[in-house]
Amino acid sequence: MKLSKKYLAHVVFESNDPASKTFDIALLAIIFGSIIVAVLDSVQSLHEAYGRWFYLLELGFTFLFTIEYILRVWLTSRTLKYVTSFYGIIDLLAILPVYLSFFIANTQLLSVIRALRLLRVIRIMKLGRYLAEADFLRESLKASATKIQLFLFTVLTIVLVMGTLMFVIEGPSSGFTSIPVAMYWAIVTLTTVGFGDITPVTPLGQLMASLIMLLGYAIIAVPTGIVSSEMARRKRPEHFEKLKSCTFCGFERIEEGDKFCRKCGNEIN
Amino acid sequence: MKLSKKYLAHVVFESNDPASKTFDIALLAIIFGSIIVAVLDSVQSLHEAYGRWFYLLELGFTFLFTIEYILRVWLTSRTLKYVTSFYGIIDLLAILPVYLSFFIANTQLLSVIRALRLLRVIRIMKLGRYLAEADFLRESLKASATKIQLFLFTVLTIVLVMGTLMFVIEGPSSGFTSIPVAMYWAIVTLTTVGFGDITPVTPLGQLMASLIMLLGYAIIAVPTGIVSSEMARRKRPEHFEKLKSCTFCGFERIEEGDKFCRKCGNEIN
Amino acid sequence: MKLSKKYLAHVVFESNDPASKTFDIALLAIIFGSIIVAVLDSVQSLHEAYGRWFYLLELGFTFLFTIEYILRVWLTSRTLKYVTSFYGIIDLLAILPVYLSFFIANTQLLSVIRALRLLRVIRIMKLGRYLAEADFLRESLKASATKIQLFLFTVLTIVLVMGTLMFVIEGPSSGFTSIPVAMYWAIVTLTTVGFGDITPVTPLGQLMASLIMLLGYAIIAVPTGIVSSEMARRKRPEHFEKLKSCTFCGFERIEEGDKFCRKCGNEIN
Amino acid sequence: MKLSKKYLAHVVFESNDPASKTFDIALLAIIFGSIIVAVLDSVQSLHEAYGRWFYLLELGFTFLFTIEYILRVWLTSRTLKYVTSFYGIIDLLAILPVYLSFFIANTQLLSVIRALRLLRVIRIMKLGRYLAEADFLRESLKASATKIQLFLFTVLTIVLVMGTLMFVIEGPSSGFTSIPVAMYWAIVTLTTVGFGDITPVTPLGQLMASLIMLLGYAIIAVPTGIVSSEMARRKRPEHFEKLKSCTFCGFERIEEGDKFCRKCGNEIN
Repeated sequence: MKLSKKYLAHVVFESNDPASKTFDIALLAIIFGSIIVAVLDSVQSLHEAYGRWFYLLELGFTFLFTIEYILRVWLTSRTLKYVTSFYGIIDLLAILPVYLSFFIANTQLLSVIRALRLLRVIRIMKLGRYLAEADFLRESLKASATKIQLFLFTVLTIVLVMGTLMFVIEGPSSGFTSIPVAMYWAIVTLTTVGFGDITPVTPLGQLMASLIMLLGYAIIAVPTGIVSSEMARRKRPEHFEKLKSCTFCGFERIEEGDKFCRKCGNEIN
Repeated sequence: MKLSKKYLAHVVFESNDPASKTFDIALLAIIFGSIIVAVLDSVQSLHEAYGRWFYLLELGFTFLFTIEYILRVWLTSRTLKYVTSFYGIIDLLAILPVYLSFFIANTQLLSVIRALRLLRVIRIMKLGRYLAEADFLRESLKASATKIQLFLFTVLTIVLVMGTLMFVIEGPSSGFTSIPVAMYWAIVTLTTVGFGDITPVTPLGQLMASLIMLLGYAIIAVPTGIVSSEMARRKRPEHFEKLKSCTFCGFERIEEGDKFCRKCGNEIN
Repeated sequence: MKLSKKYLAHVVFESNDPASKTFDIALLAIIFGSIIVAVLDSVQSLHEAYGRWFYLLELGFTFLFTIEYILRVWLTSRTLKYVTSFYGIIDLLAILPVYLSFFIANTQLLSVIRALRLLRVIRIMKLGRYLAEADFLRESLKASATKIQLFLFTVLTIVLVMGTLMFVIEGPSSGFTSIPVAMYWAIVTLTTVGFGDITPVTPLGQLMASLIMLLGYAIIAVPTGIVSSEMARRKRPEHFEKLKSCTFCGFERIEEGDKFCRKCGNEIN
Repeated sequence: MKLSKKYLAHVVFESNDPASKTFDIALLAIIFGSIIVAVLDSVQSLHEAYGRWFYLLELGFTFLFTIEYILRVWLTSRTLKYVTSFYGIIDLLAILPVYLSFFIANTQLLSVIRALRLLRVIRIMKLGRYLAEADFLRESLKASATKIQLFLFTVLTIVLVMGTLMFVIEGPSSGFTSIPVAMYWAIVTLTTVGFGDITPVTPLGQLMASLIMLLGYAIIAVPTGIVSSEMARRKRPEHFEKLKSCTFCGFERIEEGDKFCRKCGNEIN
């Protein structure tokens, strides 16, 4: 019989046959649908006109998510592990807000939690061709983590020193009302965002601001250089896929021109 | 006789002799002329002073484009294929707006279609030295497409979560009137554009904004790293295609200009 | 006896055993605590509410820093060298402001000096895993120093010429009140910060501004390219140092983990 | 006798002995002095207070530049070639403005020409250690010229199409008064400058703006990638300096591992 528990678990957790793929695509559609409803509902004019329908749709989506969550809890072989896993918590957070809203009035906080539903897309994406690429990006960033931490510390030191200086130079009359605000301005400037809500007006302040801007313009090269060189270095393994294996010991990294296996010394034909 | 249909087709479709080149340059001049007229006509003061002349020039350009279109349809050996091709549709769109304007009053939509005339430059450019380079760029981008898609998804997730958070933290009083508006602000901030039309005013909002800015400043390294490493990788083959092998010992890295094999000393013809 | 002068010096200056590490972590906590107090104290509302407590905390931190400074002066084997070193001066600057504030009224200047306390973190960081990475970054930047100087000169030339031009084109009525102000605007624009406090309003000014923006957008590639290629080049040697040669045939690319020579099959010890 | 014409020409045109270096440094000081005076003189308050002194200093600098120009014309062996060369024209432009100001009243145009004096620094710089680096940068940019042209064409197409679209969508009421102004806005946005003097207010306009921003954020990778990969490729020649030459024919590019000269077939020991 086709609708066995094992078959259902396959449909829900795998994605290598038509039924599983249909399930994944339907889930994606519901996730994006629920997010679009939440986003549109935040627009005052749309909320007033269609707020009732948005609420009904939201209840519908939550009902479907609840069924899916119950299915997953029931179908998984290791229930406790799933419930306490990253995806298990995300899945629960996707349905909780609506049930909580029956008791709690703070709907704004709930809409933030509802936005987290987007994270559910990651699981479905993981099953596709993005997996290798995402791993590649994650590993590149992980390998550069120490350099990036050092870079962020340097940035924060610049921000603190420059923020304090600008607070002293410009003062509250130009909008630099406190060191935290001046640090916020320094970040806005160093990252070349430049909102313009706070700007220096004294010549000395404008000179200092120019220095921060040139610094920000120059040091943006550092994270780029870090990630670029890391990626360039990491490219090589991709190359290894074309290599042949040793017929004796199965060692997989036999390179072109190798006459003997590096691991077992077996001659390669 | 020189003005045969075959000769005309050569002039219109090729670009390897003086007559063809003159045709291409004249066409380029007309395209740029028509675009400059459209741009200048949108300036209120110039429209009032010279609107009449701009209209006459536009009619003239359209007349020339119409002749060119008829020529191409007549001269091509595969008329249907040309008419339905990308360039065929662009060529038709270049003349349609003016003829439509006799019947339709919405001149603004037509001016957008007229801007598409610039796309016609691509065909003329394709015949020049840009071809190889354009292919190089296109292939680099295509090879990085999966990574770029993943990157865009990550960016949109950040934008949705941050937009929702800022909408909740700052609220309509600071200009964050809805989640879509807050997402627009998050894109403005993450891409380091920073218009300043909407800015956070609460300390918590400014802290969140600082995080988004540092994030945007850091992750700009990712697309750059992707494209850079892709381009660096793609450079190599270009070099190796020119190498030949030694006819005596089979050494594969004979470079241009080598007269003797570096490995066996055999003379290379 | 454990509390000897030698043991104390080890705790204060080294960081390879639990006692030394505890000392370093306590110092880090005090440094960050004192900086957070200084930052919060600059907020008007917090200063009014808790200014008294911030002052007492500041006195406490300064007392601890003073003890630490006396300890370092007493424990070091070369007192004069320490006092005149970079870290010695930073350590002194960390405690001076508070003592000076008993005599001098200008508290703002003192708060800038207090911000320099963050520099003390560098010494503690130097003892950790960041050392190698920081050296890597510093060397990359040092190797690119000539190129970066040349780049900065080019940027400043563009800023001077463009600033003068914009001052002439736009004039004081648009906010370009003098060449220094116009140069400040040119830096704001070239670095893509774009505050928007001063913006061109004449068509010619907007055209010139567009040129500067495209220029700034294009030349940001130069520092990035410099640092990236420098980092990529610097990566390689790191890898090759670990290689050994085959003792039998002299093949030079034996990698870590290889048990047999790839060329002759000789076993590697 | 030491003060011969030949010795003077050496001092003025070369820079490899103390006298020549002193001459170059004095010239640099005068150039920077004259530029600083021009910049300060544009500040209204300083002009009112010290305008008289600035004018006298300017006359002094011009007198020194005039002597230098006469010296160069007199000392060079090929007078006509010098006068019509790039540097000859720059040298003349450095002194002309002041003499012209006796006849012409437009002092603003003259101050722009005076800013060009900074270009004179290039010649003096050329004689220093920057020469090789500047050549490196120039060649890297030249090698990428075709790609950069193509990139700029793509950017301008995006700017025209997006500018026209935004003019149609937002219209004059939001500040998009004409297509040229909308194109200026598109450049401000695409290059991530984001002044905020003109910003979209309609939802559709904000959506289009978001697309332009993400596009600008993504395609900044292209020029960076072009220049980076070009620089990485160009690094190699530096490597060739370590190679040995053929003892028979003097061919200079013998690489490690070569057994026979590639040019003459001579065996290498």
